[in-house]
Amino acid sequence: MTTKPPGVGTPGKGRTVRLSRYLPFLDWLLHYHSQDLAGDLMAGAIVAIMLVPQGMAYALLAGLPAQVGLYASILPLTLYALLGTSRALAVGPVAMVSLLVATGVGQLAQPNTPEYLVLALALALLVGVIQTMMGLVRLGFLVNFLSHAVISGFTSAAALVIGVSQLKHLLGIRIPLTESFFELLSAIAQQLPATNLVTLGIGLGSITILFYFNRRLGRLLRRRGGVAPSLIVPITRSGPLLIVLVSTLLVWGLGLAEIADVKIVGEIPAGLPPVTLPAFNWTLWRQLMPTALVISFVGFMESIAVAKSLASKRRQKIDANQELIGLGVANLGAAFTGGYPVTGGFSRSVVNFTAGANTGLASIITALLIAVTIIFLTPLFYFLPQAALASIIIVAVSSLVDVATLKHMWRYDKSDAASLLVTFVAVLATGIETGIVVGIVTALVLYLWRTSRPHIAVVGRVGDSEHFRNVLRHQVTTYPHVMAIRVDESLYFANAKYLEDYILGAVADHPDVSRLVIICSAINFIDASALETLESLIDELKDSGVTLYLAEVKGPVMDQLRKVGFVRKLGEDRIFLSTHQAMRALSGQ
Amino acid sequence: MTTKPPGVGTPGKGRTVRLSRYLPFLDWLLHYHSQDLAGDLMAGAIVAIMLVPQGMAYALLAGLPAQVGLYASILPLTLYALLGTSRALAVGPVAMVSLLVATGVGQLAQPNTPEYLVLALALALLVGVIQTMMGLVRLGFLVNFLSHAVISGFTSAAALVIGVSQLKHLLGIRIPLTESFFELLSAIAQQLPATNLVTLGIGLGSITILFYFNRRLGRLLRRRGGVAPSLIVPITRSGPLLIVLVSTLLVWGLGLAEIADVKIVGEIPAGLPPVTLPAFNWTLWRQLMPTALVISFVGFMESIAVAKSLASKRRQKIDANQELIGLGVANLGAAFTGGYPVTGGFSRSVVNFTAGANTGLASIITALLIAVTIIFLTPLFYFLPQAALASIIIVAVSSLVDVATLKHMWRYDKSDAASLLVTFVAVLATGIETGIVVGIVTALVLYLWRTSRPHIAVVGRVGDSEHFRNVLRHQVTTYPHVMAIRVDESLYFANAKYLEDYILGAVADHPDVSRLVIICSAINFIDASALETLESLIDELKDSGVTLYLAEVKGPVMDQLRKVGFVRKLGEDRIFLSTHQAMRALSGQ
Repeated sequence: MTTKPPGVGTPGKGRTVRLSRYLPFLDWLLHYHSQDLAGDLMAGAIVAIMLVPQGMAYALLAGLPAQVGLYASILPLTLYALLGTSRALAVGPVAMVSLLVATGVGQLAQPNTPEYLVLALALALLVGVIQTMMGLVRLGFLVNFLSHAVISGFTSAAALVIGVSQLKHLLGIRIPLTESFFELLSAIAQQLPATNLVTLGIGLGSITILFYFNRRLGRLLRRRGGVAPSLIVPITRSGPLLIVLVSTLLVWGLGLAEIADVKIVGEIPAGLPPVTLPAFNWTLWRQLMPTALVISFVGFMESIAVAKSLASKRRQKIDANQELIGLGVANLGAAFTGGYPVTGGFSRSVVNFTAGANTGLASIITALLIAVTIIFLTPLFYFLPQAALASIIIVAVSSLVDVATLKHMWRYDKSDAASLLVTFVAVLATGIETGIVVGIVTALVLYLWRTSRPHIAVVGRVGDSEHFRNVLRHQVTTYPHVMAIRVDESLYFANAKYLEDYILGAVADHPDVSRLVIICSAINFIDASALETLESLIDELKDSGVTLYLAEVKGPVMDQLRKVGFVRKLGEDRIFLSTHQAMRALSGQ
Repeated sequence: MTTKPPGVGTPGKGRTVRLSRYLPFLDWLLHYHSQDLAGDLMAGAIVAIMLVPQGMAYALLAGLPAQVGLYASILPLTLYALLGTSRALAVGPVAMVSLLVATGVGQLAQPNTPEYLVLALALALLVGVIQTMMGLVRLGFLVNFLSHAVISGFTSAAALVIGVSQLKHLLGIRIPLTESFFELLSAIAQQLPATNLVTLGIGLGSITILFYFNRRLGRLLRRRGGVAPSLIVPITRSGPLLIVLVSTLLVWGLGLAEIADVKIVGEIPAGLPPVTLPAFNWTLWRQLMPTALVISFVGFMESIAVAKSLASKRRQKIDANQELIGLGVANLGAAFTGGYPVTGGFSRSVVNFTAGANTGLASIITALLIAVTIIFLTPLFYFLPQAALASIIIVAVSSLVDVATLKHMWRYDKSDAASLLVTFVAVLATGIETGIVVGIVTALVLYLWRTSRPHIAVVGRVGDSEHFRNVLRHQVTTYPHVMAIRVDESLYFANAKYLEDYILGAVADHPDVSRLVIICSAINFIDASALETLESLIDELKDSGVTLYLAEVKGPVMDQLRKVGFVRKLGEDRIFLSTHQAMRALSGQ
């Protein structure tokens, strides 16, 4: 019986193209179930509770006024809900992208100036255009070239940079703008004596409370009982809101801004986001392009990782290219409504999912609540101390410093561990953008290095079977005049000479050998350089009195070898279907 | 019976380290056979006959006075003969390196000025240091990353650039210095009306004679008979010398330099090379470094290719790292004796070999003859027309433009052909140095692209055998509930998601399948990113009611999977030694 294979090489090909592929919200909106509403409402409300303080905090981290973080949390969320393929992804300002905005735009303008704001809007526009274009021309696969090791090293280092960048708010000190992590550390160390102790107290108190909410409170409530289980997530996630309320009341009530010089957020203009027209300026765009590219990639990478992991829990599908379009349009939305670059955030998305978000409606509810906040509630944030916002950021990024992955990789594969460490150090030493490029290049170079020195095994017969295994690992039978070697890599320019040296060395060390079989089961292609090396190898071996044979050549490779006459040159009878057949024919047994 | 494998992974390891490894000339000098002398003398003389005009011509190509080419043909040859591992390699000025000197130094100084000469010496010093260091730290393998396609594209384009750069001498016109090949072409076209017809006549006549000597004369002499076969090579190779003599006599006898304004070489100072101290100047070195790196690589690549091909004809060994040391010290020799960067030349080495060079003595004889020439014979070259030298260069490089390789690669592998073409175009469009970097990067990116989209085959049983082959290529038997797929590539970050998508798509398309076997015979390693993908794949398949199995996992891969607990997670009984065993157990037959 013979069956057809699945759509080889083009997964998903041939499925009907439906309108909902381009407008994914039709999938949930047209079949909206009333029982989904409760989850969507609850999740939308909880995410809004997290997003109000986080949005303001991340905007400050990006060097922007607090309200910009809220502006970026209304239209972008709604647009993603309509065009994205994840139903639980919570889009908006996130720490990593905010840091990239700060370093990228910070090179071109002073934070908290009108020019800076113009640049942030232009950056959102560029990110939007890049991501949308990449999605339209289906470049989503490019994110695959970011290895897990590079992502892990990058995330840990960026979290460290973000955390340290907030120390000045926590300590209430002034630090000049610096490019380098180590300069920042030394500047903080110098300013330590100038610490504002009241500010530090607010900050440390906030951090303690936040950690308590995150790590302890849930377990305590569950153990104690008496609280409805459905309320536990909302309660534990309201830590930041509580911090905002308590610290604001404290500063207002005790007049700390005046008597202790505690830095506060100050006036936030009320009202819906303004309609903004980002600058269409070629020179500006060229300067912002490197940052825009990094934000487009890093933002997409962070977003797709969490979207995929959440979707697989409910057996939903994520389309990487449609995700790029969803995020790109969300960023365009940010650019035209006074925001700054956004993406899908890790922790808020997990909360959204856990709290019961069933459809994109949850995000639309979040956006509505943020809009209500910015219209009516901004005066409440006047006395909000910046140290409280810094503590929210520090706690949020602290969980991103990931030592476990490094340990795991160190045990599993030193090469992965090396690219993780190189990325980590490069981000700290040379900055976020150069660092990630260094990491990607390192991972690729290590991969090339590995494939340039392939594993080659001399094999022998396992018992009386038709199987041949490495003589170093298994008790196997070999023959004095025939050597069979298995090359565990495709042959290409970077490893062809290595193979040639190995084989000539092996033949020189074994004068008895007169027949050499290369087992090609792991050779998936042979490029033109390697083909040339093989051709000269035939002659070189012949000069040494050794005849070359091939076994287990794969179909596509065989086709290619036949096309250029290599099979004719070698001799059709010197290529065997299996190692077993080759050894039976050549060993004379 | 069990045998030991050859020195696995480290060819040559464990051989006795002898003095002659570091001083390769001891190998031939200590056992010099008198019967080798005739060949060495003949080859040394013929190469000298070629090298006198070529050395002067290449020096002019490099923007240097003619005698510099001769200076670079004395001490460097002798040093290479002592330290190099090839016995037939003819070191000295070559066209490609001369062009690199012209473009690299030409950016920093005007040709034929004292500053230019200082820079050329410093460049030889840098190249010498770089190559020697690379050899000492054993970086010779780096040259393997230059694919045959890139070398071919680069060589053809460089030959074209060199040829076109000589047109001005052939036409007797003045062309402003330009960086770009296309600017050069248009400048020549503009100046065409100013062609000096007498100069052009000398040039075209020389080219005709040279082609006749190269292509026809040997065949003619062999067919006619009457000439001792051992004299045919010397005769055919003396074309350039004849050109030099005849054209000089013509210009001198007819007074063409005065009456027809034919450009001549002019006065060449007589006497041995001066002892020169290259500039030790850090700023200068930094400016020359990119050029020095490219010359070090390209020179080494050209040299090792011809050295290897000649050595294999006599079953001699070339040690790449010792070659780097030999060439490096030769360049240091050039730097201290008024020369400029040298390397092993292709055509002169082939002539040296064909004419019977048995040992390095041949090169030492060449050097002696060049020394005699420069002491006594330089006045003879006063009236030598530059057009004659240009014609020698043009004929020498014309054979380097290689369309056959492109055709061959186009048939064999489009990806190789693409990197050849990209390199070719990049060298013409962006210059030699950028072009070769573009080429190398293109070849690596195409390789990564290929490995990121691996060939995946659904396989079935061939007849009643234990072999399983692609269902699309062979008439094979499959089972309805078990799908076996073979992945033809190691799994790493760039292709892990591709595999995941493929498998999930395949399972979705075949609802009957409840058992999926991944055949790992071509998987040579699994990196940490791919491991994570595999782990999530187990869960995703489980959710779809499909159990994952592995077969033919290689020893090293199995060790790694065991180390991190993957084998325990999957279940030891879900990994089979062979596909045959897996299918027998799972198909229930």
